[in-house]
Amino acid sequence: MFKKILIANRGEIALRIIRTCKEMGIQTVAVYSTADAESLHVRFADEAVCIGPAPSSESYLKVSNIIAAAEITNADAIHPGYGFLSENSKFSKICEEHDIKFIGASAEMIEKMGDKATAKATMKAAKVPTVPGSDGIIKDFKECEKLAEKTGYPVMLKATAGGGGKGMRAVWKKEDLKKAWDSARQESAAAFGNDGMYMEKLIEEPRHIEIQIVGDSRGKACHLSERDCSVQRRHQKLTEETPSPFMTDKLRKKMGDAAVKASEFIKYEGAGTVEFLVDKHRNFYFMEMNTRIQVEHPITEQVIDFDLIREQILVAAGVPISGKNYTPKLHSIECRINAEDPYNNFRPSPGRITNMHAPGGHGIRLDTHVYSGYIIPPNYDSMIAKLITTAQTREEAINKMKRALDEFVIEGIKTTIPFHRQLMDHPDYVSGNYTTAFMDDFEMEPQKED
Amino acid sequence: MFKKILIANRGEIALRIIRTCKEMGIQTVAVYSTADAESLHVRFADEAVCIGPAPSSESYLKVSNIIAAAEITNADAIHPGYGFLSENSKFSKICEEHDIKFIGASAEMIEKMGDKATAKATMKAAKVPTVPGSDGIIKDFKECEKLAEKTGYPVMLKATAGGGGKGMRAVWKKEDLKKAWDSARQESAAAFGNDGMYMEKLIEEPRHIEIQIVGDSRGKACHLSERDCSVQRRHQKLTEETPSPFMTDKLRKKMGDAAVKASEFIKYEGAGTVEFLVDKHRNFYFMEMNTRIQVEHPITEQVIDFDLIREQILVAAGVPISGKNYTPKLHSIECRINAEDPYNNFRPSPGRITNMHAPGGHGIRLDTHVYSGYIIPPNYDSMIAKLITTAQTREEAINKMKRALDEFVIEGIKTTIPFHRQLMDHPDYVSGNYTTAFMDDFEMEPQKED
Repeated sequence: MFKKILIANRGEIALRIIRTCKEMGIQTVAVYSTADAESLHVRFADEAVCIGPAPSSESYLKVSNIIAAAEITNADAIHPGYGFLSENSKFSKICEEHDIKFIGASAEMIEKMGDKATAKATMKAAKVPTVPGSDGIIKDFKECEKLAEKTGYPVMLKATAGGGGKGMRAVWKKEDLKKAWDSARQESAAAFGNDGMYMEKLIEEPRHIEIQIVGDSRGKACHLSERDCSVQRRHQKLTEETPSPFMTDKLRKKMGDAAVKASEFIKYEGAGTVEFLVDKHRNFYFMEMNTRIQVEHPITEQVIDFDLIREQILVAAGVPISGKNYTPKLHSIECRINAEDPYNNFRPSPGRITNMHAPGGHGIRLDTHVYSGYIIPPNYDSMIAKLITTAQTREEAINKMKRALDEFVIEGIKTTIPFHRQLMDHPDYVSGNYTTAFMDDFEMEPQKED
Repeated sequence: MFKKILIANRGEIALRIIRTCKEMGIQTVAVYSTADAESLHVRFADEAVCIGPAPSSESYLKVSNIIAAAEITNADAIHPGYGFLSENSKFSKICEEHDIKFIGASAEMIEKMGDKATAKATMKAAKVPTVPGSDGIIKDFKECEKLAEKTGYPVMLKATAGGGGKGMRAVWKKEDLKKAWDSARQESAAAFGNDGMYMEKLIEEPRHIEIQIVGDSRGKACHLSERDCSVQRRHQKLTEETPSPFMTDKLRKKMGDAAVKASEFIKYEGAGTVEFLVDKHRNFYFMEMNTRIQVEHPITEQVIDFDLIREQILVAAGVPISGKNYTPKLHSIECRINAEDPYNNFRPSPGRITNMHAPGGHGIRLDTHVYSGYIIPPNYDSMIAKLITTAQTREEAINKMKRALDEFVIEGIKTTIPFHRQLMDHPDYVSGNYTTAFMDDFEMEPQKED
């Protein structure tokens, strides 16, 4: 087992990893930028090394400084957390070259899964469903017609040079294809000086549902069930839950099998997540694979009863996994509490927390690196806490979240607590009938006067 | 279901009950003494009624004031928590007379189990093992000899007027009985002017292991496994765990069956606990039954995955229980954090909490009514928080407790956090080889200089 692990990250995930290391009797080294000197991840680690000024490029992304910190402190492994260098194949390789175990995917796997086109091709080869469509630019309308037949309606025509919805058309039936083709090309040519088109199947009422997997050094993998992350704002997840209210036993089996197949095909080692889009007919399509721990991993931990960071460390140390797939017996929800003002278009709200009181009691978990008196620096991601509730049913988990949000006091800054409180009462959320479009129509109720 | 529940208690258990009521959509009424106006149980309830000055006899034990508060607020049920009026048969009866549902045992059951002699006789009739011995005063030495044979050595001779160990003798074999009989009687006569003796079987290396049961209105009961509460100081439990490190599957089955039998024999309704002494040979003897929720109920909740307060409320509303017995699949430990100075003979340390930071993360639960700035009144029990850890194994739960205790900051007062931290490293605790005598020999290591 490792003697000392350096955590190449900050905030709640750095603290999360330090906690597990402590429980495993492994020494820890925190690294921090000058903006993070007062963070709990620095306070709770056995050693801490300042690796540079506030900008990430000069500290948390500065490979040479991190490697130097590991060498100075004699760390025999590095845990990268999520974000920053966690999916940087060069960093994984450099660690390896310095004889420091990178607790994550190998450079080769990161490269395989990091590039969208390569990942899609790999998954096709592994016979994991991917979004059907054209391979690159469509030659002419004849090819377009054939492709649409093959892909199956509805389809999306997209400008290769596109962006912001320009040169994009949804086509629901054959009769409408020609008109869409012509107008999309015209629009694209006008906007980008390029009328190249490609096609993708249109995913109706898409849900973002991902499968947590763990693979070991023997190439064996298992899945730890799904997480529904469809509630997103500008591709940022806001809240997640497991099981998905849209899931069926049959679909879980199919998606779980596909994720395990994907993982074993590339002999994936470590904890990873296979993200899928699921349409209203419960067809699912590979989106991407994250070769690292995810922000939302705690909801999985709550329903499988074990520690995923511990599992990552064990797998990295060569311990084989049990190989057992999991079906959640409980329901767990995570709300990401951000230092943002939900009444003001989620504008970041860094600054000093003048008072904080954490919710507690039955079924409540809180992962946070902040405290009363802590100053949130403006330099990083605005997430300051993850509030997780777990109960026997979805309804109970929602009710628990409501009362925990009501108890949660954070003063001095704005947070997304009021957003989550309203979300938990939203009829579409409560019914479980939500898709990735949920936030498009969401509006905050006016703020109550105290 | 109840519309509004009045919680006739204070502190963490009042808050605990309010939380579950909120989650169930039930309105809550807090009652409080003038000393508790700033407590979280007052802040988090829907309504709060001051019921008198600080002394319990004038507030939390003042039946007329509590009933008046329930009538004024239109509460249709009262939850008594633990302590105070929770096992007061008159209070249970008065509630009934006022058409307010008492969420606890009926007056009759409280009376049956409240008196030690009646409880023992009832359990004997139910064929639940009780501590063997004499029925009252032993006539003469001849009877004493016969009784000792029947009870089986070792036995304890005890002065009926006794106390503080005076007139008490442990006798391990027949040859020593006469001498012990004579000297104990002499000592007792000298000390109390009364040489009456009774006999009880000596429980070797006793452990306090209790079984959580739930019974419903049909008279059906089930057990939710055991809690080991052997670590006690002056009969006050300090820490509890489930499963007991001394437990075997066979013993759990026998003790669980006995507890269910006890419960069904008296048609017990609600959550209750049957406390046993278990000797080193794994014989077990009924000690007492608590007809209320226990302080240490959270560790059971952690391993059975449901809310016991919710279960109490459901049973009180007439909902039948599932009837399923439970075997813990996880391990859970609770440390009672008291406002006491463990370096100064656990002397109470009330006063203002100037700063508090709660531990968090995977497998951590905290139940507390205190916060930064809260002033602990000197009038009540010194328990200010219950820290609970849960993991797949006992070793992991202990390691989790260590790191959580290390993270837990409470400034301005003394607490038992350092005691628990040392306990978690004590070889006899770590090995699980502890009895109710554990604290007799325990001494705090000297305080580390910061």
